[in-house]
This record gives sequence, structure tokens and C-alpha cells, in this order.
Amino acid sequence: MNDRLAQSVRRLIDATIRTQVDVQTLATVSDKIDWATEQLSASLLPGSFGVQQSPDGQSLALGNVVIGRRNPVAPPLVVAEGADGTVHADFVLNAAYEGPPGHVHGGVCALILDHVLGATAHQPGRPAYTGTLTLRYLRGTPLSTPLRAQAHVDRIDGSKTFAVGHIADAEGVTVQAEGVFIHPKESRP
Amino acid sequence: MNDRLAQSVRRLIDATIRTQVDVQTLATVSDKIDWATEQLSASLLPGSFGVQQSPDGQSLALGNVVIGRRNPVAPPLVVAEGADGTVHADFVLNAAYEGPPGHVHGGVCALILDHVLGATAHQPGRPAYTGTLTLRYLRGTPLSTPLRAQAHVDRIDGSKTFAVGHIADAEGVTVQAEGVFIHPKESRP
Repeated sequence: MNDRLAQSVRRLIDATIRTQVDVQTLATVSDKIDWATEQLSASLLPGSFGVQQSPDGQSLALGNVVIGRRNPVAPPLVVAEGADGTVHADFVLNAAYEGPPGHVHGGVCALILDHVLGATAHQPGRPAYTGTLTLRYLRGTPLSTPLRAQAHVDRIDGSKTFAVGHIADAEGVTVQAEGVFIHPKESRP
Repeated sequence: MNDRLAQSVRRLIDATIRTQVDVQTLATVSDKIDWATEQLSASLLPGSFGVQQSPDGQSLALGNVVIGRRNPVAPPLVVAEGADGTVHADFVLNAAYEGPPGHVHGGVCALILDHVLGATAHQPGRPAYTGTLTLRYLRGTPLSTPLRAQAHVDRIDGSKTFAVGHIADAEGVTVQAEGVFIHPKESRP
């Protein structure tokens, strides 16, 4: 049910950016949104969503800004793990992720690549944190176009996983990335 | 007026992630949000917001995912330019930007640093595009805490601006960044 709400809010975000309705309609809609927020705020988690256990023991990061199904800011990305150790995600980014006109903000590409490269190092109950991340931008990444992010492990050295990957559209790679992801010995951060 | 709507939607996003109300309330609120989206969609820009000229000739990137005042996904960052050529932005990130529990997603730090480092190279009517960006994560960046991102130009070589910067909380730097930003000779991307 929170999934439906988050999906509704994603559509609202897009319409908020692109709407051209008059000031009176904007005021009426804003009032209605404030009413909705008040309803939802009748009972709130004290802080952020964090990671919560599902009834069957899975760790759910539903509030995560990249993959969180109940976070309207997340596209949300669905990261699939291949049998060959690669990970990938297929997605389309709309007006909410704009940088240069008509294009995905370079920093959003970094956000997605950080997550997808990091996913190569993650293990259940044993998260990996980004140590370093390097992005190389080859050309603009278009909005409203099918995109794929993919990554694989280049090598592992002790607690460090070295991963490489990229984002591509139908015409090829737009951004390349490499990163070092670290399994901390103790809980961190 | 779009500013007020975007601010209302930002509060709604936070409540959507953190709410614990019952299924019936979620359904009622979702219906109301869908109604609001329908009202706003009576007149929509055909695509993303892009960059539009204000009546006094300023270029406005109101839909930008980092600084766009009418983009609810943007915090929005207000980037200030110092007399000494440095740029900085003060901000607080809430539950919508979460990665590790209680902390800002490392990729969101990359998104903000890409923008703030890039701002050192931007000139009116002459945007700069990210060539490469390297992030070094020193420790977790906390949510709901005053943060500052700052950057300055290290050197300029032809069309390339080399910039460095970081994000810090009250206890010091959490993420360092360096990037190369390029002024294209022709229009790009």
C-alpha cells in the first residue's frame, strides 16, 4: 500500500515540475497536498526509514534513495544479479532527474553508479561502503529513454572489492565508473 | 507559487517515507494525490523543464535536480559564490536521501559535489560539463544535520577547469572530491 502511495507521489513530482496551470489551481492543489501530509503525519517513524526486517526475515531498505520502493525520490531502481557475478538495472529517468536541458544530471548518474557498483560487493547482512568512486563522462545521458546500468567485480583484495561499470543507452556507453567498496571489520559508519 | 507547491511536495515525500498510518488512510491519501496530479496535468510542458528565461533575462534551471526550486527532488541547494572564487552551499538532508541507515547515500554526496564543483567552472551563458569526477569517502555523512559543501578552482588549462571540494559536518570533512569540468567549443551534449 505504501508502494501505491509512493508511485502516486512520483507522478505528482513530475507534474509539479512540468505543470503550467494557473496560480489559483496551484494554490488549491498545494492546500490539498498539505492536507495529505497532515493525514500521513498522524503517525510517523521518529527518524528515517533505515533498514527494517520483514516478517520473513529479509532486510528491507524501503526508504533508500536509489532502490527504496516507498521513497518517491527513488526511481526506484531494481538491481538484478546475474549468474556470472554481474549486476544490472534497467530504468528510465524523467524530468525530476534533470541537469543539462533534456539530460540526466551527471550527479544522478554518479548516484546510480555508486549504488550499482556497490551492489557487486554487498552480501546479505554484510554491507559494503564506498571507499572511492571515479566517474568518466563520455557524453550526455538522455532523459525519458531506456537506460541500463551494469557493473561487475574487477578484483577483490582483502576487505576491498574493486568494481567497474557504466550507464548506457541504445547508442552505447554514456558514463563509465570504477569504485572501491569496503567491508568494514566493525560496524560503520 | 510553484515554489510553495514544491515545498509542499517535499514535506509530502518525507511523510510518505516515514508514515505509519493504516491502510485505509494510505488509500484515501493516495486517491487525493492522484486527484492533485490530475489537476496539475490539465496543462503540462511537453518535456522536462530545461532552462527558461525569466522576464529580466536570467536563465532559470527551476527543474534542476540539485538547485531547482520547483523540483521537489532537489533539496534545493542554494549555491553561493564567494569573492575569493570559492563556492559553497549549506543544507540539511532528510530521510528522502538515505543510504546506510541514518546516513546520506554516498551517491547523493556525489550528486551534490558534482554540482558544487561544477559551479566553480560555470559562467553565465557558458555552462561547463563534467569530464571526470573522483570521490573519496572518509566516513558516513549524517542525515538531519547541518552540512556544508564547498569547492574551489585548483587550476585552469584551456577549456578544462580542475576543481576540488568536500562535504563537511560540524566534526569535519566526510567526503572529498576532485573533478575536471569542460567548456565545450560547440553546443553539447
